[in-house]
Amino acid sequence: MGVVIPLDGAGNKKRASIEPLVKLTQADMERVNESILSHARSHVELIPEIASHLINSGGKRIRPMLTLAAARMVGYEGDHHLKLATAVEFMHTATLLHDDVVDESDLRRGKQAARVIWGNQASVLVGDYLLGQAFRMMVETGSLESLRILSNAACVIAEGEVLQLSVSQDTSTTEDAYMAVIVAKTAALFAAAAEVGAVVAKRPPSEQAALESYGRNLGVAFQLIDDALDYSGSTEKLGKGVGDDFRERKITLPVVLSYRRGTAEERSFWKRTLEDGNQTADDFIYAKKLMERHGALKDTIDRANHYGDIARDALAIFPDSGLKDALLEAVEFCVARAY
Amino acid sequence: MGVVIPLDGAGNKKRASIEPLVKLTQADMERVNESILSHARSHVELIPEIASHLINSGGKRIRPMLTLAAARMVGYEGDHHLKLATAVEFMHTATLLHDDVVDESDLRRGKQAARVIWGNQASVLVGDYLLGQAFRMMVETGSLESLRILSNAACVIAEGEVLQLSVSQDTSTTEDAYMAVIVAKTAALFAAAAEVGAVVAKRPPSEQAALESYGRNLGVAFQLIDDALDYSGSTEKLGKGVGDDFRERKITLPVVLSYRRGTAEERSFWKRTLEDGNQTADDFIYAKKLMERHGALKDTIDRANHYGDIARDALAIFPDSGLKDALLEAVEFCVARAY
Repeated sequence: MGVVIPLDGAGNKKRASIEPLVKLTQADMERVNESILSHARSHVELIPEIASHLINSGGKRIRPMLTLAAARMVGYEGDHHLKLATAVEFMHTATLLHDDVVDESDLRRGKQAARVIWGNQASVLVGDYLLGQAFRMMVETGSLESLRILSNAACVIAEGEVLQLSVSQDTSTTEDAYMAVIVAKTAALFAAAAEVGAVVAKRPPSEQAALESYGRNLGVAFQLIDDALDYSGSTEKLGKGVGDDFRERKITLPVVLSYRRGTAEERSFWKRTLEDGNQTADDFIYAKKLMERHGALKDTIDRANHYGDIARDALAIFPDSGLKDALLEAVEFCVARAY
Repeated sequence: MGVVIPLDGAGNKKRASIEPLVKLTQADMERVNESILSHARSHVELIPEIASHLINSGGKRIRPMLTLAAARMVGYEGDHHLKLATAVEFMHTATLLHDDVVDESDLRRGKQAARVIWGNQASVLVGDYLLGQAFRMMVETGSLESLRILSNAACVIAEGEVLQLSVSQDTSTTEDAYMAVIVAKTAALFAAAAEVGAVVAKRPPSEQAALESYGRNLGVAFQLIDDALDYSGSTEKLGKGVGDDFRERKITLPVVLSYRRGTAEERSFWKRTLEDGNQTADDFIYAKKLMERHGALKDTIDRANHYGDIARDALAIFPDSGLKDALLEAVEFCVARAY
């Protein structure tokens, strides 16, 4: 905790990596991957077809990894955490399918979105199927507390997405309103994924709360970095189209900050491009220039660091272990993606 | 059981009615209605707005009514069945919201569909919210068995909808393939709704199975009658636009039968209108004429009667009671809608 890794390129410490976490959860993750594939099966052909398109499209599986790592870190030795991790990934995949329909996205993780290949109809319905399958798997663990946490997360995620619709294309959205959206739509699942790791291990409320806090703050940091990368990253690094948020007229923190700090003329630019949806070819370049001018990307990353710090401190109550170190480093990694 | 009520208008017995069932579940249903309204609340305004649009649009609430009636008929005296009934209605409402998006329907229960007023995006997301809320309520009952049954139903319903996509616009669909669709997309929730009534009352497997069978067969009959009404009913009676299925190029049993029994020329008509989607103003009238010629509507109703008979026989193991009579009459009513 508290150790600040000089991410800005000083280079006197090796770059933070997700690899230790990947390695320590690898054996469990292989079983989760099998479970994902076998539970995405259905006699209705289109379901495994679409599900494997998404499942094989190279997501990092960070959410189920949190469940696996959390459960093992607190000493769990059973295998119900595998089912919960699978359920968490299914919930996430269902959200992606529905998100693409809602956002009208063409790319997902650098590949054609399912809705482009199979249509919106199939994306909505296969999403519903995966959500149902997620609950089925939770039921199999017999853990009502995990069911409570994850069904609650399902509601909060949907609320966050609806909230996003209502703030969308409103450039005067406040930072607080924006934060409320991402806490719900992104951080809630990270939080639940980590928390159920402690729940399945029947650990005390203090440890459940610590992991919930770790997950939630990591989720916020993760989303903020994603938002920054959409204006500064490469499509390859981001796994979706750079500039997608701008094209889809999404209000994210870099926009909120640029708008608030901008001149009247600049605000007209944001209104024209994001509220009126009247965009020309050079607008994205100009948007990035405005963000640079007002330090909006740098400050978005600073905000992400703030939440990353809270996530790391949340783990303080756990004794040192390889998994704890890996979870701490995962936070650094997540934030360092932006550099 | 076994008594055939002369529905064709002989008039020597009073017309079957849903009223006895409505009356006997009324006190419980009032509490379910309160529960529906309070659980559709959210600080995200759009959610209660859309939810109440659907909830107040005059659905008959037959699915939650099945849960209430089943639980009381087998002697349940607690109040967990109210939560399960609410969850069942939420699952149904979520399906309606997603269905309208998938079908691109403009009307729902005779009113503008939510997607027309608020857009597809909000319909997808509010559906997700209601599904999450449904699971939350099931968790509150602490009944893992009910959770198992209803999460299973959620998967089967989605499978049925996907299956429907793949058979849609294929006029050579067999009756069996069509039946597989409606057993999944409609009957599964009727079955689960009735079954959990026995589960919450902790009744033996034989009674759970009997109620499951009652619900499933009633659901099939209900859907077949709906299919027939789409070609013979009035918009008012049906609560959706008559001719919607034809316009949306849905393959339903009346079409399956007419196509199979038709001449080569008639099959060309069905292919042009439903497969190629090339429809002119008079085609719906001609479609009804073809159905008349081949007895397709009459036979669809006969098939519905067959399933209705099975539903009634399923209840034979229960001692006579007012609720049992009301459930039996509900089957008659459901089939009699077609006359």
